[in-house]
Amino acid sequence: MEKRKKFMLSEADIPTQWYNITAEMANKPQPMLNPQTKEPIKAEDLFPLFAEELSRQEVNQTDPWIDIPEAVREKYKIYRPTPLVRATELEKALDTPAHIYFKNESVSPMGSHKLNSALPQAYYNKLDGTTNLTTETGAGQWGTAMAFAAKTFGLELAVYMVKISYEQKPYRRSLMQTWGAQVIASPSMSTKAGRKIITDHPNYQGSLGTAISEAIELAMQTPNCKYALGSVLNHVALHQTIIGLEAEKQMEMAEEYPDVVIGCFGGGSNFSGISFPFLRHNMTGEKHTRFIAAEPASCPKLTRGRFQYDFGDETGYTPLIPMFTLGHKFAPANIHAGGLRYHGAGSIVSQLLRDGLVEATAIRQLETFEAGVLFAQTEGIVPAPESTHAIATAIREAQQAKEEGKKKVILFNLSGHGLIDMSAYDQYLAGDLTNHEVTDEEIDKVLAEN
Amino acid sequence: MEKRKKFMLSEADIPTQWYNITAEMANKPQPMLNPQTKEPIKAEDLFPLFAEELSRQEVNQTDPWIDIPEAVREKYKIYRPTPLVRATELEKALDTPAHIYFKNESVSPMGSHKLNSALPQAYYNKLDGTTNLTTETGAGQWGTAMAFAAKTFGLELAVYMVKISYEQKPYRRSLMQTWGAQVIASPSMSTKAGRKIITDHPNYQGSLGTAISEAIELAMQTPNCKYALGSVLNHVALHQTIIGLEAEKQMEMAEEYPDVVIGCFGGGSNFSGISFPFLRHNMTGEKHTRFIAAEPASCPKLTRGRFQYDFGDETGYTPLIPMFTLGHKFAPANIHAGGLRYHGAGSIVSQLLRDGLVEATAIRQLETFEAGVLFAQTEGIVPAPESTHAIATAIREAQQAKEEGKKKVILFNLSGHGLIDMSAYDQYLAGDLTNHEVTDEEIDKVLAEN
Repeated sequence: MEKRKKFMLSEADIPTQWYNITAEMANKPQPMLNPQTKEPIKAEDLFPLFAEELSRQEVNQTDPWIDIPEAVREKYKIYRPTPLVRATELEKALDTPAHIYFKNESVSPMGSHKLNSALPQAYYNKLDGTTNLTTETGAGQWGTAMAFAAKTFGLELAVYMVKISYEQKPYRRSLMQTWGAQVIASPSMSTKAGRKIITDHPNYQGSLGTAISEAIELAMQTPNCKYALGSVLNHVALHQTIIGLEAEKQMEMAEEYPDVVIGCFGGGSNFSGISFPFLRHNMTGEKHTRFIAAEPASCPKLTRGRFQYDFGDETGYTPLIPMFTLGHKFAPANIHAGGLRYHGAGSIVSQLLRDGLVEATAIRQLETFEAGVLFAQTEGIVPAPESTHAIATAIREAQQAKEEGKKKVILFNLSGHGLIDMSAYDQYLAGDLTNHEVTDEEIDKVLAEN
Repeated sequence: MEKRKKFMLSEADIPTQWYNITAEMANKPQPMLNPQTKEPIKAEDLFPLFAEELSRQEVNQTDPWIDIPEAVREKYKIYRPTPLVRATELEKALDTPAHIYFKNESVSPMGSHKLNSALPQAYYNKLDGTTNLTTETGAGQWGTAMAFAAKTFGLELAVYMVKISYEQKPYRRSLMQTWGAQVIASPSMSTKAGRKIITDHPNYQGSLGTAISEAIELAMQTPNCKYALGSVLNHVALHQTIIGLEAEKQMEMAEEYPDVVIGCFGGGSNFSGISFPFLRHNMTGEKHTRFIAAEPASCPKLTRGRFQYDFGDETGYTPLIPMFTLGHKFAPANIHAGGLRYHGAGSIVSQLLRDGLVEATAIRQLETFEAGVLFAQTEGIVPAPESTHAIATAIREAQQAKEEGKKKVILFNLSGHGLIDMSAYDQYLAGDLTNHEVTDEEIDKVLAEN
């Protein structure tokens, strides 16, 4: 048999169910709380904000498998199953005994994994009779996915795009508009939340936390309008498990099983997606894979944040979420990995980290771009700045395998390509990029105000 | 069996040979001529410019099948086989009885079909001991492909990028640099050809013809350096037949055969690639498929040019090529489909057009973007401005099928995505794009100077 580079599934192999890890966790994630009453949030408490089925998925801790609606699965066929690729050329460049695989989620029309959750979110809202949606986006990966998903299921969409990304990545704004969405730079004057932060900090470049506040506020004030979130929440992680479920079958085709699984980490969507299906075999004791969440050193909630109840947005419109957080007022540095500029981690990953079932590592911006360029020059694909965090971590693991002279099977998620992030590569190649440090004092200060 | 959206081949199905249509044409293309002696060009005459095997492929009119080197086929696995997709959502939007399929060549790391020829061109040059390459690029699709191919096989590359595209599409410049290539806006001061045209026309925005002159001149003056071209030539069309050869197998999987095959047309590379493998069954009389080359109305060499011997570049460094041409001094309008801004057609397609074996149609810019947005909103993929010419033509054919109430199987080549061309979509959505007309007088004037 000839040497295989890619491991491909057919459309018939697209999973028919998502995997709900909370049903099988020994220590369940703590519930979200109502900020006023401190009572646990129930599905119906979320109905004003989210479609009913999404609200039920959010609090479901009993069913390990949730059916994927046929209409969503049909749309998944536009780009799924995605390839699993052996990074043979990267291995050669590193001269490592490690086998490196990546799941290539960059093949969606907008270039990232985000469509995996955008499609079901639009679908369930359409079912409920929702006509308008609002959402936020950092680098624009989620906003573009949501724009196409909304168009597909016939919904209107308004996207609050973090201002620094709106300026750094204008093509993602164009993409959203081409798919028919309305795009507003955040903070904006269109909401109370936006007006307040613009007034308090006139040069504020925005954050995901602020954009979420604005999107929620607009949704609450608009008839027949709901809100959609691209990460952090349990139902988003649920939809993203399609990544790992496919990867599991593909690793079988490759006749290997990962010793390490790696994803970059913003709020948790792609890390959860690649990890949870493999993690379930750790929870039964059958496997002993390591899972590494790779976060930016400038926004280190997992490695240096505190586990506590916190708001998911800057203004405090969301329920309280049990999570590792830097504080909901944390203003991350303007790194190019805009999708990772979020103060908190989803409650499932937070619980898994507390229980030692997953690990986290923090990577500085320059190391991530160095890894990104090496990956581009060997494997061809220019990775998104977010995904370079996973690649840098995979390279560290591969180098360690070389030092130890050990074979090791590494799997990482290539969450997206960077074709629309080329200004970041320009800056890197010109030597104009820097690392952004955050001091313990800064973190303590924001958390003290929480 | 469930409804299929995509028809996928496995890596083992990647063709092992390219198809050389000239071996089976009843009327062979006329030979290229030496401009001084007017003698037919032989392979060895091309050795100073191209790798030896590429030169032999260029003049080979006897072998219908040429082996793909194993090292090239290995690299093809990075992105091949590419999907054949049924454009079900576009069909619904058009309410047409036609079945529309597209071959998705946008899935390569740089987003177009150009890597199909860049890889073998770099490979054969490496075999010959070439250390440096020069090339030109219009919109940047060819230059990005050549940049990665050169990096892959360890060659240095300098790319002359048409100035208007250098400004319109800065991310493609960044991509080439990320893959390690040097990029120069053309016309430049670095060559005699560039200096002359800058002096004669200080505001000249460049053309493929001028960029080719500059690249050839630099190659001729640099030790151990050869030149690479991304379209027009026979060996480029040869490499691109991998598109149609895969599509042929995939149409069999879909249990259909195309009544119409469509490709956009600049110099001929992607149109040839999708068409020739199907066309061979027309030449035997076994099938009666129509083949439509879709060119921009502002650069209409096939529909309004003249068949004659002409230079492939603006200065006149190339051999004389028998082709439909607008004259090698033709300066096309600054349309966004930069890859189609070329004055001439490859000699094979030119001969096929003379013999009535293929057709051509010219499309105005606004119709192409209208088609591109409809395609994006239905099938998800934002097409390259070049590819929108093929889509617009497919839509015309599908609408005609509706009017006639006939089933019709349409296949077009999606030669690339437009993620890096979003400024063009911005302009279109803002109503700032126009059509560019070229008068008969202008064409006659340039041809008279030929």
